[in-house]
Amino acid sequence: MSSSVSSKVIANAIRALAMDGVQKAKSGHPGMPMGMADIAVALWTRHLRHNPKNPKWIGRDRFLLSNGHGSMLQYALLHLFGYDLSIEDLKNFRQLHSKTPGHPEVGVTAGVETSTGPLGQGIANAVGMALAEKMLATEFNREGFPIIDNYTYAFLGDGCLMEGVSHEACSLAGVWKLNKLIALYDDNGISIDGKVVNWFAEDNRKRFESYGWNVIGPIDGHDIEAVAEAIAEAKKSDKPTIIDCKTVIGFGSPNRAGTSKAHGEALGEEEISATRKAIGWEYGPFEIPEEVYKACDASEQGASLEAQWTKLWDKYQVAYPELASELERRLAGELPENWDDVVFDAIVKAAGEEKTVASRKASQMALNALAPALPELLGGSADLTGSNLTNWEGVEALRANNMLGRHVNYGVREFGMAAIDNGIALYGGFIPYNATFLTFSDYERNAMRMASLMKLRNIFVFTHDSIGLGEDGPTHQPIEHMNSLRIIPGMDLWRPADTVETLVAWSHAIERHDGPSSLIFSRQALPFVERGDINADDIEKGGYVMLEAPAGEGMQDVTLVATGSEVALASEVRKQLVALNIQARLVSMPSTNVFDRQDETYRSKVLGDKPIIAIEAGNTDLWWKYVRGNGTVVGIDRFGESAPASELFKLFGLTVDCVVKTVQQVLSQRK
Amino acid sequence: MSSSVSSKVIANAIRALAMDGVQKAKSGHPGMPMGMADIAVALWTRHLRHNPKNPKWIGRDRFLLSNGHGSMLQYALLHLFGYDLSIEDLKNFRQLHSKTPGHPEVGVTAGVETSTGPLGQGIANAVGMALAEKMLATEFNREGFPIIDNYTYAFLGDGCLMEGVSHEACSLAGVWKLNKLIALYDDNGISIDGKVVNWFAEDNRKRFESYGWNVIGPIDGHDIEAVAEAIAEAKKSDKPTIIDCKTVIGFGSPNRAGTSKAHGEALGEEEISATRKAIGWEYGPFEIPEEVYKACDASEQGASLEAQWTKLWDKYQVAYPELASELERRLAGELPENWDDVVFDAIVKAAGEEKTVASRKASQMALNALAPALPELLGGSADLTGSNLTNWEGVEALRANNMLGRHVNYGVREFGMAAIDNGIALYGGFIPYNATFLTFSDYERNAMRMASLMKLRNIFVFTHDSIGLGEDGPTHQPIEHMNSLRIIPGMDLWRPADTVETLVAWSHAIERHDGPSSLIFSRQALPFVERGDINADDIEKGGYVMLEAPAGEGMQDVTLVATGSEVALASEVRKQLVALNIQARLVSMPSTNVFDRQDETYRSKVLGDKPIIAIEAGNTDLWWKYVRGNGTVVGIDRFGESAPASELFKLFGLTVDCVVKTVQQVLSQRK
Repeated sequence: MSSSVSSKVIANAIRALAMDGVQKAKSGHPGMPMGMADIAVALWTRHLRHNPKNPKWIGRDRFLLSNGHGSMLQYALLHLFGYDLSIEDLKNFRQLHSKTPGHPEVGVTAGVETSTGPLGQGIANAVGMALAEKMLATEFNREGFPIIDNYTYAFLGDGCLMEGVSHEACSLAGVWKLNKLIALYDDNGISIDGKVVNWFAEDNRKRFESYGWNVIGPIDGHDIEAVAEAIAEAKKSDKPTIIDCKTVIGFGSPNRAGTSKAHGEALGEEEISATRKAIGWEYGPFEIPEEVYKACDASEQGASLEAQWTKLWDKYQVAYPELASELERRLAGELPENWDDVVFDAIVKAAGEEKTVASRKASQMALNALAPALPELLGGSADLTGSNLTNWEGVEALRANNMLGRHVNYGVREFGMAAIDNGIALYGGFIPYNATFLTFSDYERNAMRMASLMKLRNIFVFTHDSIGLGEDGPTHQPIEHMNSLRIIPGMDLWRPADTVETLVAWSHAIERHDGPSSLIFSRQALPFVERGDINADDIEKGGYVMLEAPAGEGMQDVTLVATGSEVALASEVRKQLVALNIQARLVSMPSTNVFDRQDETYRSKVLGDKPIIAIEAGNTDLWWKYVRGNGTVVGIDRFGESAPASELFKLFGLTVDCVVKTVQQVLSQRK
Repeated sequence: MSSSVSSKVIANAIRALAMDGVQKAKSGHPGMPMGMADIAVALWTRHLRHNPKNPKWIGRDRFLLSNGHGSMLQYALLHLFGYDLSIEDLKNFRQLHSKTPGHPEVGVTAGVETSTGPLGQGIANAVGMALAEKMLATEFNREGFPIIDNYTYAFLGDGCLMEGVSHEACSLAGVWKLNKLIALYDDNGISIDGKVVNWFAEDNRKRFESYGWNVIGPIDGHDIEAVAEAIAEAKKSDKPTIIDCKTVIGFGSPNRAGTSKAHGEALGEEEISATRKAIGWEYGPFEIPEEVYKACDASEQGASLEAQWTKLWDKYQVAYPELASELERRLAGELPENWDDVVFDAIVKAAGEEKTVASRKASQMALNALAPALPELLGGSADLTGSNLTNWEGVEALRANNMLGRHVNYGVREFGMAAIDNGIALYGGFIPYNATFLTFSDYERNAMRMASLMKLRNIFVFTHDSIGLGEDGPTHQPIEHMNSLRIIPGMDLWRPADTVETLVAWSHAIERHDGPSSLIFSRQALPFVERGDINADDIEKGGYVMLEAPAGEGMQDVTLVATGSEVALASEVRKQLVALNIQARLVSMPSTNVFDRQDETYRSKVLGDKPIIAIEAGNTDLWWKYVRGNGTVVGIDRFGESAPASELFKLFGLTVDCVVKTVQQVLSQRK
């Protein structure tokens, strides 16, 4: 770092780029970057360990913008400090297919660690990353070999702190004593609606102390030395730290600083000009003097940091060759060599045993079969372990003092759980999964969407999947949930019918590299369904002919399409229809999402050209896309009731008799 | 209250009923009722003002079970204290169509104020009720006439406190200084997964002090006198109060008390017998001695309380006849007499002006037209007021010191906002609405579901409804959201195309007595669409023929079905198709939910028997139920991008040219 350029000048360079970027796009948020510029300079020039030329270096500190609307701050930093983000990229802020989208997007911009914008989730991602670091360090570091060793820094604002998900995630960070997590709070007293004191009057110190955090401040967030010192102090704590930095939103803007007007719109040419004058920035739009670039560029220092690390890593590989290659595999996200065999053996065993169990139990059996081969598998439940059956034989609980535990008690915190797991998936080295009742997927929905958008291998387990859960009643009985999750772009939802399909669903979710999966399981026991000569490859296509018409292939009058608990029902219907001279093919469709990705030929072949009766104990609307004009849907389009499950299936017409009648009606209408 | 029966005996009666109810149902949660029985007795015998024979008496204190799984506690209380809930009802716990479903359900059981089970929302409902009480009292009480004057008591457990929604709602309760809200915390240290200290180690006092609450305790939750005194102390505070009551889950059960095993399953005959012995309860299952009933029955006392109130009310009616009749109207949920005229005039004006505005602006225009006639309208935004445009001319902000304000700054707290509004709707006297960006409906989804389940008039405004929001990018661009909300049973979703449809949507939502509505508005300007001879009655049917084929009724080759911003697009397509010799009917479908409730004749007439092209800038899957086998759907099934809106509509094929081509393809495939 050249000392000829003061830190204040760098902060002003950031302010100028933020103003200019937003002005050129005529859209964006200048207030936060201008307010947090000094904090950013303190962190990036005095503390952050990173290598701009290798943004994927595992030893890097993680930097997250939980208040993601301030994206120009991150883009300005990446640009100034030597990342692959040119001034032209900054000029293309918010333009189609640019590297500088409206909110930071992981995978689009080198150096961006997570996609943010939906408030509160970034800090939860940071908790996940800090947890992953601590776990991986515990597992792989050895005396004298701190191979895994980084801080996680999160910027956040009032909005993040108001959101409930910050409560959930930060409480867990305290329990887990994530001392290498350092949050920098942009305490500017302003949110979009104005002065926050009228709707956000919390004592932040008390709040975070209640979680077991180390709280520093309030300090002056425009005093770069003070911020740098606070970060140094934070590093000494045995707890996660939040540094309360008092700032002025839109700092430097003579007429907008300190007001919500600075938050989310371009300042305008006139005010930008006035701001340039006020902060003493004499350069033109997007013009950064060479000495500022020189002062900022962290490439050399970063290369040297990585070189030091690589030296250590080389020695580690010699000293601990097995650990090293295992760590490499884990970080690459590759599965163990024997993985295919493990899955194959488990499927053969399940197919042989033909067990009648609840599919949530089948899921636990799958975990018992697969988890021992997968040290990276890490998951748990939002305080429903005994119901979700997320633990496997012999697994230990993750605790602050047992970071080798692989089962997580997230507490009753669905949203925090999902967003923390997104952070774990982003860090790497683990395949996270989590669980709650399907109806409470509502609580964590946006984190599932973010997992999809970020293409993360995060596995969402949901049990108690229909009225089949019985007595807990309508608050707990999912109706619309499966269809509402299926339509999140990139989400693969699986609802297996038995132990074999459950294993395929789990293995698919684990093998999938480019997105999350939702695994949907029943509370009640599901009979193992007699099936034709099917192998796992068929099931992996998401939908397949489980049983041809009794009279043989191509002889069907009707095709029954069912999922999960309704497959056994449909199988029984198929049998009964024979007596009525109706030949039915049974299609099991554990994943509509995966089925939709098959080619047209396969899909047509499976569905056939005869009337389709789709059967699922949930909302019907989505199924018309398979039925089209030919057939009908049997399902549930109103809330459930509190009663034993068997009575409910009768009440809602999900019985063999009812479906048989429906089939007859459909066929008679066609005659 | 007879003094011959001690409070402890009443608590044991509750314990016995809870054990017996769960045992008979072989399902349910005995641990919480047994643990909170003493707290309940302290509240119900020493403090609660209510009239069991008139559970709707407006002067009653509100009692909510945020930890709703402990429903047998509430049922036992209602039964013992004289409500219309017999011992037979208790024996039918969790049976089909009983008055005692698995979790408390408002509307099913007299005396149940809200439906709970999904954790954390009950306390948020309580915040809403306490706010409504404070606002209504401020508006209607006069010197010497405390007509509106009640406490809101909420029971809650560790689960509620872990959930993020409790953070959001309780923070607002502090800001609003809701001093008549008293929460009783069942601090038993146990959740389903075991001892909470391993995942929930917060300092509850610090947390709630940070919100500006009065914190009492920890006290012994089995010391009835101590609890009663704490409640008395709470009533003196000028802040909301939480009383931390240390309890033992499953209190009395020799082998399960203090363990998670007591939480969610029947104790079993043997353990019940041991518990009876341990607590000295010598009666048989569901057997309650007459003196206990006598000691509990609050009917007489309740009648007397209500009689006192009625006396005051009678005088109030004489002293303030206009206020009294206005309050009566408001509490009955009836609209002002001139309501129809106000709506009619607004629609005529909008139809005449033919304004081209963003539908979010049209929504604000609707508020400007309707709100002055509706003093019960109360709403706001989750810190996006200037974007959601939820405020109307001259409206004041609601503040702790201005409870006559009608615009609410909820802060960035979508879930809390929605659940608080459910509480306001339950209390009555107000029609709440709230707003955020459509994509963040994810954050509040389960509260929307609860509004639907409880049939509440709660209005959910969502702006920025598609890729049309442009530069903010995929995190902010809804894709799956509209379809995922449409399939919540009982939800009416509206996506109006212009100022007229917006007024119809708002008036429908306000007039609807039996459920919530979601109103979906655009960020971008929408042209006023030329339309045929349509009146509001057509629009109110949810879908209608906006423009017949240019050649006249019945002459169409194809029907274009569109919503919101795509109606203008479809209208242009209709025009262009004429040159290609294709006649198109334009159906505007602002509400599929309402359209689905029309009779088959109407629906068939609107949709016709020609190929249908459904057009909506969102997920396509739901639209096949209208298209069936005849036509196609134009929409978006992947995540959006950050760019100016006009470029995005091109990128995603939502242009006149693209849709025209699609129509041609559909028709050519049929030839």
